[in-house]
Amino acid sequence: MPPAFHEIARRVNNWGRWGADDELGTLNLITDGVARAAAATVRTGRRVPLALPLRHDGVQTGLIPGRVNPLHTMTQVNRRLGPGPVATSDDTVVMGLQAATHWDALPHVSHSGLLYNGRPADTVTAHRGARFAGIDKVPHLLTRGVLLDVARARGVDRLPGGHAVTPEDLDRAEEFGRVAVRAGDVALVRTGHMAVYLAGDRDAYAHPSPGLSYRTPEWFHARDVAAVANDTLTFEVFPPEIEGLWLPVHALHLVEMGMLQGQNWNLEELSTACGEESRYSFLLAATPEPVTGATGAPVAPVAVL
Amino acid sequence: MPPAFHEIARRVNNWGRWGADDELGTLNLITDGVARAAAATVRTGRRVPLALPLRHDGVQTGLIPGRVNPLHTMTQVNRRLGPGPVATSDDTVVMGLQAATHWDALPHVSHSGLLYNGRPADTVTAHRGARFAGIDKVPHLLTRGVLLDVARARGVDRLPGGHAVTPEDLDRAEEFGRVAVRAGDVALVRTGHMAVYLAGDRDAYAHPSPGLSYRTPEWFHARDVAAVANDTLTFEVFPPEIEGLWLPVHALHLVEMGMLQGQNWNLEELSTACGEESRYSFLLAATPEPVTGATGAPVAPVAVL
Amino acid sequence: MPPAFHEIARRVNNWGRWGADDELGTLNLITDGVARAAAATVRTGRRVPLALPLRHDGVQTGLIPGRVNPLHTMTQVNRRLGPGPVATSDDTVVMGLQAATHWDALPHVSHSGLLYNGRPADTVTAHRGARFAGIDKVPHLLTRGVLLDVARARGVDRLPGGHAVTPEDLDRAEEFGRVAVRAGDVALVRTGHMAVYLAGDRDAYAHPSPGLSYRTPEWFHARDVAAVANDTLTFEVFPPEIEGLWLPVHALHLVEMGMLQGQNWNLEELSTACGEESRYSFLLAATPEPVTGATGAPVAPVAVL
Amino acid sequence: MPPAFHEIARRVNNWGRWGADDELGTLNLITDGVARAAAATVRTGRRVPLALPLRHDGVQTGLIPGRVNPLHTMTQVNRRLGPGPVATSDDTVVMGLQAATHWDALPHVSHSGLLYNGRPADTVTAHRGARFAGIDKVPHLLTRGVLLDVARARGVDRLPGGHAVTPEDLDRAEEFGRVAVRAGDVALVRTGHMAVYLAGDRDAYAHPSPGLSYRTPEWFHARDVAAVANDTLTFEVFPPEIEGLWLPVHALHLVEMGMLQGQNWNLEELSTACGEESRYSFLLAATPEPVTGATGAPVAPVAVL
Repeated sequence: MPPAFHEIARRVNNWGRWGADDELGTLNLITDGVARAAAATVRTGRRVPLALPLRHDGVQTGLIPGRVNPLHTMTQVNRRLGPGPVATSDDTVVMGLQAATHWDALPHVSHSGLLYNGRPADTVTAHRGARFAGIDKVPHLLTRGVLLDVARARGVDRLPGGHAVTPEDLDRAEEFGRVAVRAGDVALVRTGHMAVYLAGDRDAYAHPSPGLSYRTPEWFHARDVAAVANDTLTFEVFPPEIEGLWLPVHALHLVEMGMLQGQNWNLEELSTACGEESRYSFLLAATPEPVTGATGAPVAPVAVL
Repeated sequence: MPPAFHEIARRVNNWGRWGADDELGTLNLITDGVARAAAATVRTGRRVPLALPLRHDGVQTGLIPGRVNPLHTMTQVNRRLGPGPVATSDDTVVMGLQAATHWDALPHVSHSGLLYNGRPADTVTAHRGARFAGIDKVPHLLTRGVLLDVARARGVDRLPGGHAVTPEDLDRAEEFGRVAVRAGDVALVRTGHMAVYLAGDRDAYAHPSPGLSYRTPEWFHARDVAAVANDTLTFEVFPPEIEGLWLPVHALHLVEMGMLQGQNWNLEELSTACGEESRYSFLLAATPEPVTGATGAPVAPVAVL
Repeated sequence: MPPAFHEIARRVNNWGRWGADDELGTLNLITDGVARAAAATVRTGRRVPLALPLRHDGVQTGLIPGRVNPLHTMTQVNRRLGPGPVATSDDTVVMGLQAATHWDALPHVSHSGLLYNGRPADTVTAHRGARFAGIDKVPHLLTRGVLLDVARARGVDRLPGGHAVTPEDLDRAEEFGRVAVRAGDVALVRTGHMAVYLAGDRDAYAHPSPGLSYRTPEWFHARDVAAVANDTLTFEVFPPEIEGLWLPVHALHLVEMGMLQGQNWNLEELSTACGEESRYSFLLAATPEPVTGATGAPVAPVAVL
Repeated sequence: MPPAFHEIARRVNNWGRWGADDELGTLNLITDGVARAAAATVRTGRRVPLALPLRHDGVQTGLIPGRVNPLHTMTQVNRRLGPGPVATSDDTVVMGLQAATHWDALPHVSHSGLLYNGRPADTVTAHRGARFAGIDKVPHLLTRGVLLDVARARGVDRLPGGHAVTPEDLDRAEEFGRVAVRAGDVALVRTGHMAVYLAGDRDAYAHPSPGLSYRTPEWFHARDVAAVANDTLTFEVFPPEIEGLWLPVHALHLVEMGMLQGQNWNLEELSTACGEESRYSFLLAATPEPVTGATGAPVAPVAVL
């Protein structure tokens, strides 16, 4: 672990900030007032969905064994359960909880044996999943969203694989959108990389990938952002920036700050809509599915402009 | 099929209303203007979650074979994927799509071999699921919600098993909440029956159950409601009202009207909140998970007062 | 459907041979006497396993959507259920029933709307699976096995992709093994193609593939073979021999003859063992997992020489 | 842990007996000679299946969360994949590996942090399952089986719930069957308790249950049995015999002796057949499904008399 990491970790650390037993982290920043103000952001009522469809040919390539693309199977097809002409169809799904558009829960990663708020990593078990700060502890997630369209702000459709999004990129995106990120916002960082998957190349979508630099958590911390999501599989830049250290951004966001991360969000239509409306802030409804003990969960986010 | 059913079916039928190829049905009623007005409904920013947790001891009792309660399993627990001290946990879920708090998609039921808009029922197949009007065709679902607290309006905590909620009950609930249901709203009909499950009795929750009478679809149709959800497993009253005809309300809503139905919504906390705030309308964010070809899908709805 | 197919179909047809209600087909040929004689075949007691391991990086490539490679997840890891120092681990699997080493059940294919014994194909439903002749109707499968080592008989390690195994190939393999296939035997036809998968190339294993020619069912029929298995994904040669007709061998074996087929059997070690022992017949224990209503099932076959 | 347990553990311990790296334990006792002699046991060729069907209403009651009954779903029903009239059906299963008729693998339990052969329990992980001695390390399981019909030997159809099968019971069953258990045999201990499940009462089948006493492992050890299976969910008597110590038989068999255990074997038809044939030994083919890393696996055992 390089000294730089420890320095940053110390500066962005939120342990104890909302009490020793807190399991929500920066979601505490979404107060009733923030939610109320977020609703007041709506101008046109135009709604933009941000989720990928849940289907067998999703973004997973098989590299992460258990993170299987959704398998949808029918258990009934037009079957009459009782008397009369009414028949029902019914179905099931098997899926990796982080297979598609999802939120990472805080215990998705640990570092040095610890989770957010200093809890031991072994509170995650095979039997019960995450007893502490699992995604089921998030009752709702609705606040103002801000699109930081880093790609467009740099004048490109998408950032190349391996591009590390820097604090300077985020500044430029704020300027581009004439919007200032504030406390309780969810920041949506668009790299444009989703276009690679949408064009059919899952392997190239997986890696190399643009993504957040380990220097960005301080930027989010300074603004007291409630959560961050982007349009990549790896969230942070891949291959990693620092030799010998994988997933520093995960560790800073989830463990040190106690801040949810979203991955595989489809921000393409939103980029178009924000451009057309000349507005980069909106109401964001993005409550995860409350899977008990889960370290992540699917979400079907919607932006309302 | 009793003549009464056919009479009602004829009166509430929406086939062709939004075009011969329409797959959204009454969700078309949620225009940008409706969504904008819904956001403007927010007063305090108080948010109330309406989803049951997704867990192995959910509401399913095994009576419906494939509709299995969620099985959550860990595929990684604090595993180091690369160099450095950061470890990750990862997990999967297997579940019936309609096992917990969910929306029925329009093709969840057919009657007399037809789906909404007159499409053949055999567009649902084991291989691809629902090609027409599957839940993945619903990009977003965010509008004004109205709580019709039928139980409280009748002065009870919960309606008894077998109680058929009538149009008169709905009138009374509007009056009780001093609210008028209007076009594009989602009506949340509270029977209070969820308390039976929350108290631990799954079998009694399953049946007998209070639920909607086959006479209520006309009530919703007259007001151009966008969707209806309630706090029961069966949605409509069970045992059925009409001998020899199962699921008439499903057939009227999903097939004739093209209107989504929600089941197993937990309206207990919302009932309290609406009482405390003396307001029975709110912003409702309730976008289903977009499972391709699914005839229903989990949703984590949130009301914002 | 070319006339040749219909001619062959007529000649190999077994409908009604074991009664109009028979669900076992050629497995009827494995009488107590055949099983007894099979046991008497054993000389050395050397046992050779023929199953591929059930694992996430199995032979499936994703081309057949629902036929997912096995996903193994732990539900408990060293968890103490009760008092004392004893802890238990427990696990689950999700898998396509035909994902790895398996038997096709008779209703795995239909042609012209019919299954074996002339039953309607629609006895297979999404809700109940195969009501007629599902794999659960096979109580045991233990008989004499004969290795027809077509590759070695042709003096090669493996047949090239696209090679159609002919009746002449089978004759030559009998001669090579100095063995005569007889009534009630299970014939194991080795192409050597499994080596392609074992060397790590799943795509090349999938296709092009060597496999049985549509002319071989008559060969098996003439000898009253009980079942046939081989070491390929497609069983029959792929791409198909006859333009405009997929899966003719499946149709002849499963539908016309009522004969089980085995795929993805690993015959590499058996080839070596039979060569070393100079014996190509053995006791074969190959009872499928009795999944109710399944159109195929995993099997862990063992040859005892 | 009572002193008696430690005494017994010391006496039956097989660690190091087949080398420090051995992962097979008492299965080493099934030599080629034993397998050959087992085949020679066959007299009539009568085959008796011992597996329960794999179906949604199997023996699991939901008490053990992840050990779900098999969920069978169709992914294709009579679907034409290519040109021509041939259509295919395909399906999947989700199941607890120990949900039905199964073998416990050696790492299914640990005690005091250790597995068989003194390996650390933490070689079982959520990510990879059992790296040491998982069920995939068992290439075949075919040997002589002996039915110890304890119920019939005591003159009853079935033993009552809570009855601990003792060494004296096993002696009596040997005498009843005029058979002597010898090295490399698999002992099938019939309590008759399966009849409770077959009659439809899953809860009574679960507990109280008859089963093996903690005094029986020495009996099996003295005879060098290769494995033991019975017709109960819990295998050992439940409620437990020793206060404060759950699963002592599991710990002695799996950890100390390195001996596989089988549960939920249906021995009803076998009891009848052995009675009719007046023979209590037979060829037993019982190779588990080779799920990589699994701590148990389904098996479809067959006895050949």
